[in-house]
Amino acid sequence: MAVHAQEISKKTNPDLVKERKKCTFNTLELIHLLDGGEDKTKERHQREAFFLKDPELHLEVPLEYLSHKEQYEESVRITCKIFQKLQEFHGGLEHIREILGGQLGSALLKDGTPLGVHYVMFIPTLIGQGDTQQQAEWLMKAWTCNIIGTYAQTELGHGTFIRGLETTATYDPKTEEFVLNSPTLTAYKWWPGGLGQSANYAVVLAQLYTQDKCQGIHPFIVQLRDEETHEPLWGIKIGEIGCKLGMNGANNGYLGFENVRIPRTNMLMKHSKVLPDGTYVTSSSSKLTYGTMIFVRVVLVQYAELYLRKATIIATRYSAVRRQSQINSNEPEVQIMDYVTQQNKLFPYIATCYAFQFVANWLWDVYNNITNELESGQLDNLPELHAISCVLKTVSSADAAEGVETLRLACGGHGYMTSSNLPRIYGFVTAMCTYEGENTVLLLQTARFLIKTWQNKRNLSKSQTLKYLEKSLDEHIQFEKSVNWIIYTLQQTTARKINLVNNHINERVKKGHTYEDAWNNTSIELIAMAQLHGRTFIVETYYNTVNNFKKQVSPELSVVLQQLLELYAVHTFLRSTGDILRFSGALKKDIEVVQLWLEELLASIRPNAVGLVDSFDMSDEILSSSLGAYDGNVYERLFAETQKSPLNAEQVNKSFHMYLKPFMLSNL
Amino acid sequence: MAVHAQEISKKTNPDLVKERKKCTFNTLELIHLLDGGEDKTKERHQREAFFLKDPELHLEVPLEYLSHKEQYEESVRITCKIFQKLQEFHGGLEHIREILGGQLGSALLKDGTPLGVHYVMFIPTLIGQGDTQQQAEWLMKAWTCNIIGTYAQTELGHGTFIRGLETTATYDPKTEEFVLNSPTLTAYKWWPGGLGQSANYAVVLAQLYTQDKCQGIHPFIVQLRDEETHEPLWGIKIGEIGCKLGMNGANNGYLGFENVRIPRTNMLMKHSKVLPDGTYVTSSSSKLTYGTMIFVRVVLVQYAELYLRKATIIATRYSAVRRQSQINSNEPEVQIMDYVTQQNKLFPYIATCYAFQFVANWLWDVYNNITNELESGQLDNLPELHAISCVLKTVSSADAAEGVETLRLACGGHGYMTSSNLPRIYGFVTAMCTYEGENTVLLLQTARFLIKTWQNKRNLSKSQTLKYLEKSLDEHIQFEKSVNWIIYTLQQTTARKINLVNNHINERVKKGHTYEDAWNNTSIELIAMAQLHGRTFIVETYYNTVNNFKKQVSPELSVVLQQLLELYAVHTFLRSTGDILRFSGALKKDIEVVQLWLEELLASIRPNAVGLVDSFDMSDEILSSSLGAYDGNVYERLFAETQKSPLNAEQVNKSFHMYLKPFMLSNL
Repeated sequence: MAVHAQEISKKTNPDLVKERKKCTFNTLELIHLLDGGEDKTKERHQREAFFLKDPELHLEVPLEYLSHKEQYEESVRITCKIFQKLQEFHGGLEHIREILGGQLGSALLKDGTPLGVHYVMFIPTLIGQGDTQQQAEWLMKAWTCNIIGTYAQTELGHGTFIRGLETTATYDPKTEEFVLNSPTLTAYKWWPGGLGQSANYAVVLAQLYTQDKCQGIHPFIVQLRDEETHEPLWGIKIGEIGCKLGMNGANNGYLGFENVRIPRTNMLMKHSKVLPDGTYVTSSSSKLTYGTMIFVRVVLVQYAELYLRKATIIATRYSAVRRQSQINSNEPEVQIMDYVTQQNKLFPYIATCYAFQFVANWLWDVYNNITNELESGQLDNLPELHAISCVLKTVSSADAAEGVETLRLACGGHGYMTSSNLPRIYGFVTAMCTYEGENTVLLLQTARFLIKTWQNKRNLSKSQTLKYLEKSLDEHIQFEKSVNWIIYTLQQTTARKINLVNNHINERVKKGHTYEDAWNNTSIELIAMAQLHGRTFIVETYYNTVNNFKKQVSPELSVVLQQLLELYAVHTFLRSTGDILRFSGALKKDIEVVQLWLEELLASIRPNAVGLVDSFDMSDEILSSSLGAYDGNVYERLFAETQKSPLNAEQVNKSFHMYLKPFMLSNL
Repeated sequence: MAVHAQEISKKTNPDLVKERKKCTFNTLELIHLLDGGEDKTKERHQREAFFLKDPELHLEVPLEYLSHKEQYEESVRITCKIFQKLQEFHGGLEHIREILGGQLGSALLKDGTPLGVHYVMFIPTLIGQGDTQQQAEWLMKAWTCNIIGTYAQTELGHGTFIRGLETTATYDPKTEEFVLNSPTLTAYKWWPGGLGQSANYAVVLAQLYTQDKCQGIHPFIVQLRDEETHEPLWGIKIGEIGCKLGMNGANNGYLGFENVRIPRTNMLMKHSKVLPDGTYVTSSSSKLTYGTMIFVRVVLVQYAELYLRKATIIATRYSAVRRQSQINSNEPEVQIMDYVTQQNKLFPYIATCYAFQFVANWLWDVYNNITNELESGQLDNLPELHAISCVLKTVSSADAAEGVETLRLACGGHGYMTSSNLPRIYGFVTAMCTYEGENTVLLLQTARFLIKTWQNKRNLSKSQTLKYLEKSLDEHIQFEKSVNWIIYTLQQTTARKINLVNNHINERVKKGHTYEDAWNNTSIELIAMAQLHGRTFIVETYYNTVNNFKKQVSPELSVVLQQLLELYAVHTFLRSTGDILRFSGALKKDIEVVQLWLEELLASIRPNAVGLVDSFDMSDEILSSSLGAYDGNVYERLFAETQKSPLNAEQVNKSFHMYLKPFMLSNL
C-alpha cells in the first residue's frame, strides 16, 4: 500500500487563530513601522511575489536529498534563472543587494550561490581598487556576467594574518608581466565562493615583488579559465574544497599558481602602481578601506538578525501549536509556550531581533557619515567606529548563533529535521562567527581601542560610544526598576572592568612582561570586557530607538515596544550578574528583583508572542520551514515533507536484496 | 592540467614533535591508567585493529558526497559487513556494546546505522518485557538477525509525555487478536531508527484497550514487512522521516496502523497480561524500569565524553600546528595554542573529558549496586539516583555540545569543513540534548527531587548526593586556593539557591497560585539550581577520583592530574560567579584570585597539552579528521580530502554548458 503525499489543509491551526485574537496591538502598524512606511511594505511584497511565485525558481527535490555534485548543478541552474529574472525586474541590477542580500535571497538560494562573491566582492573591488581604464575594461563585462569573478585572499595557511599571505606576484619588466606563484601548499588560495567550478576570473591578493623588493599585499585580476571551454588556463590549479557544515551551494574553491603570467595592467592600480620599468609608486590611503569594512559589518549585523528572526518565528509558532504534558494534572495538555522555561527560550530572542535591527540602523547611519567625512579627508572618527563595528559584528553573530541553537533545541526532535530549516539556518549563522574577522580576534581589536582610550581619558567626552566611561567610574545610583538604571549599571560595570583589566596589564608589565605578553596574558579578561561594552551599547541604542518610536506609534504598540526593550535589558543584565556584583553598585537583592521582573515580562509578552513574530511579516516561502508556516499545520507539513525523500518513492530499497537479506539468512 | 591527490608525508609535523618532547609525564602511564591496566589497552588495540584494518569496512567516497539514498545504501552495506565480522571476532556478539557503543563504533558507522536500535532497544525489550515463551520465540531470531527490529514509542505528536501517546491496541476476544490503529496523523510513530527501510519487526508502544477500558501504554511485537519480499504488510504505512541535522545513516522512520491485527501472544507479557477472554492482569513493578533508565544514562554520559574527547584532540593538535599572527611584533608567527584565549577554549575541555569519564564510572558503580538492591526488593535509593542521573545526562550533553562547538570554532574556517569531522561530531552530540529525556524536562525532574528533599530535611544525612546541603547553609569558610574551597563554595551556593527558590515557590502559593503554577512560574530558577547541583557534584566526584589515583601513579603524572582537576574546578567556579557572590560567603576579591589562578593553570598545562590529548590514545581512523591526525600534516590532509569530491573529478562540470555559458552570453 503506497502512502501518498498529504494535502495541507486550508484551515489555520485553531491554537494560532486563538493566539492572533489575543494580540493587543495592530500587527500591521508594527509591520509598517519596521519597513519604514506602508509603501515600503508594499514594494517589498511586490518584489517577493515577482520572484517567489515563479515556479521555475522552485526546487523539485529539496537540495538535501541530492548528491553534493547535483546540489552544485542545481545551484547553478537556479542562480542563472534568478539573475535572468533580475534583468526583467524593473530597476534590474541596481536592486541586487536589496533582492539577494536579505530575506528574499535566502529563500531563493537555499544553500548559498556560486555567484554571490561575484557581486559582493569582485565587482566592488573593481570599483574600489581599479583605475578608470581598468574599470572601463572589466566593469561592464562583470555587471552583465559576461565574466564571472571571485575574490581570492585567504590561503590554506593564512586567514586572519593578511601580512602572512604567501602567494607572490613578481614583476618582469622584460615582458611587462607579473608572474604568479604559490611557493608552498599553504599558499594555495582557499575558500573563495564560486572558485571551484563557476568563476573564470578572480581578484587575487598577492605579495608584490618588483625590483627585488617586496611591497606587500596588492590585488591583481587573473583569468582562471578559458572563456569558451571553461578549461583552467595553463599553470592554474583549481578545484572545490569539498563538503562543509553549510553553504554547500557556494562552491568554495582552492587555487594554486605555477608561473602564471598576467599583463602589468592587471594589477589594480587605483591606489598603488607599478610603472612599466618596475618602479613602485606607493599610496597613502590605506585607511580608506576602513569604510568598506564598516559597510560589510552593517550587512553582517543585518544577516545575524535575519537568521535569528527566522528561527524566532519558527520556534514561536511551533510552541503555540505543539501541546505536550500538563501544568496542572487535572487539565488538558498545554501549548508548550505556556511553560515559563520555554518562554525564556523564545521571548528574549524576539527582543534581540529588534535590538540587532536598531543597532544595524545606527551603524548604517554612522557608515554614511563616515563616508562623507572620508571624502573630505577627515579620519579622526575611524578608529572608534572600527572598534564599535568589530564588537557589534561579534556580539550579533555569537548571540544570534546561540539563539538559533537555543530555538532549534526548543523545538525538540522536530527541530533536528532538515525540513524545519533550523539546521540550515544554523549553518549560515555560525559561519558568521568566523568569516570577515574571527570573533575573538575582533573582540581583541575592540579591547585595544578601549584600553587605549582609557589610558588617555581626555578623548572620552568627544566620543559617541565611550563618553559613558567618564561618568560611571565613581557615582552610584540606587536601584530602580527602569531600563535607565540597567543601562547605568551596565556602563558602570564596564567602566570599572576596563579599569581593573588595565591594572592587570600594568601589573604584568611591572613584573617584567613585554606589553604584548602582558596583553596576551590578560586577554581572557580583555575579550569579556569588550563583549560587555558591546552589549551595553546595544541596550542603550535600543533604548534610544524605542524612545523615538514612541512618539509616532499608537499607545497599544508603545506598551509592547517598551516591554520588549525591558526584556532585552533584563536579559542582558541577568547574563552578567557576576560582573555586575563585582563592579557596579548593584546589590544582591537588586538581582532578585530583576529576576522577578524577567518573569513578569515573560508573562506580559506571552499573549502577544505570535502577533510579534507575525509582525516580522516573513512569507512561508522565505521561512521554508515545516514548523514555522503561518497556518501552523505543523504535523501535516512534516509528513508531506517526508514524501519528498527519494527513499520513500519505492516500497523496498535495493539494499534489502543486495545486503540485508543475505545477511539475515546467513546466520540461520 | 589535472590536480592529483597529494601524498601525505610520512614525517610528523615538527611543531608536534617539539610538543611531544616537552611533555613532562609518561603518556603510556596515563593511557594505561585510563584503560584500567596495560592488558586492557592491549585488548582495545587488538579489537580496533581487527575492524579498522579491514579494507572492506572503508568507504570509497566519503558519505557526504553521496545522495541521501546512496548514503542509506552504503550504511546498510557497511553495517552488514560489520555484523558478519562480529561473528568472526572471538567472543562475537557478546562484545557488541564494547565494539559498537564506543569509539570504535563511531569510526565504523560514520553517520549512524539502521541496526543500532535493533541491538540497543529491540533485543533488550524482548529480554526485559517478554515472558519465557516470547523470549523462546523471538530472542534467538533477533540475536542472529534473522529478524530485524526497532522500537516504536515516540509519535509525531508525542515525545516527552508518554501517557499522551495515541496509537491504540484494542483486544478482540473473538479472534484473540489485538487490532492496532493510528487514529490521527499525530499518532504516527516517528523517529525509530531503522524503521524507514530496514526493520521488518517492531516493538510498538500503544494504549491497550480491553473490555472497553483503557489500561494505558503497553508494548507489542508487530511484524512490519514480509520476511521474503520486504513489502510492508497490509495496513502498515511506513517510510523514512527524511533528512536530519545528523545521523542520516540511521534510517529513522514513521509508522501508521490501519486495523492491523496481531495475535494476543504478541503483547509482551512479562509484567502485565491480557488473558484470552480479555481480562487484564496488572503488574506492580513499574519502578523496575528505572534501573534500565539509569543504565542508559551511564551510556549517554560516556557518549558525551567520547564526542567531546574527539573534538578536544582535533582542536588541540590543530592549535599546535596552526601558526598565525604574532604576539611580539619582532618575532615569527606563533602556534595559535600560545594565545591565552585559545588555551581557554581548549584546556578546560580536556579537563572536562576527565570529569565526565569519572562521573560516568561513578554512575556505572551506582547502577550495579541498584541492580542488586532491586533484585532484593529494595527501592529506597531509586528516586535519588534517578535525580542525579537526570542532571548528569543533562549537564554532560549540554556542556559537551557547547564544548564541541567552541572547539570547532577554535579551528577557524577549517573547522567548518566536513573533513575536519567536527560538524558531524556536533550533529551527534547536540542530538543528545533532546533524546532520552529532553534536557529542560530532565532538569525539572532533578529540581523536583531537590525541592522535595529540601522540604523534608530529615533525609539529607542518609543521602549520598545531597548530604552536603545539611552543613553548607550556615557555615562559611575563608578563602583558600584549593579545590576543597571551591567545592565548599559551590555547595554552599547550591544549598542557599535551593532555599531561595523554595521560598519563591512558597510565596507564589501564598499569593494563591496552585502549587503546579507556582512551580512553573519559578522554573527558570529551578533549572539553574538543578544545573548548579549537577556541576557541583561532578567537581566533587572528580576530586575524589583524582585523590584515589594519586596513590597509584608517578609523581609526574600526579601533578598533571591535579592541574586538570583544579582547572575544571576553577572553570566551573568562574561560570557561576553571579550565583557565588549572591549566595556563598566568597568575596569579590576571591573571584579576582580565582581568575588569576585560571591563567596560571593554563600556563602550567600548556607544555603538556599535546601529551594530554595523545593520552586519549585515539587512532586516526577513529578521529577521521583532516585536522586531528597524530602526524599533524593538516594542510596535506585538507588538500588530499578535496580530491575525494566528485566535482573535482572533471575539469568542467556540465552545468557550465547547460546553464552558465548561455547565461554569460545572454546579456552581451
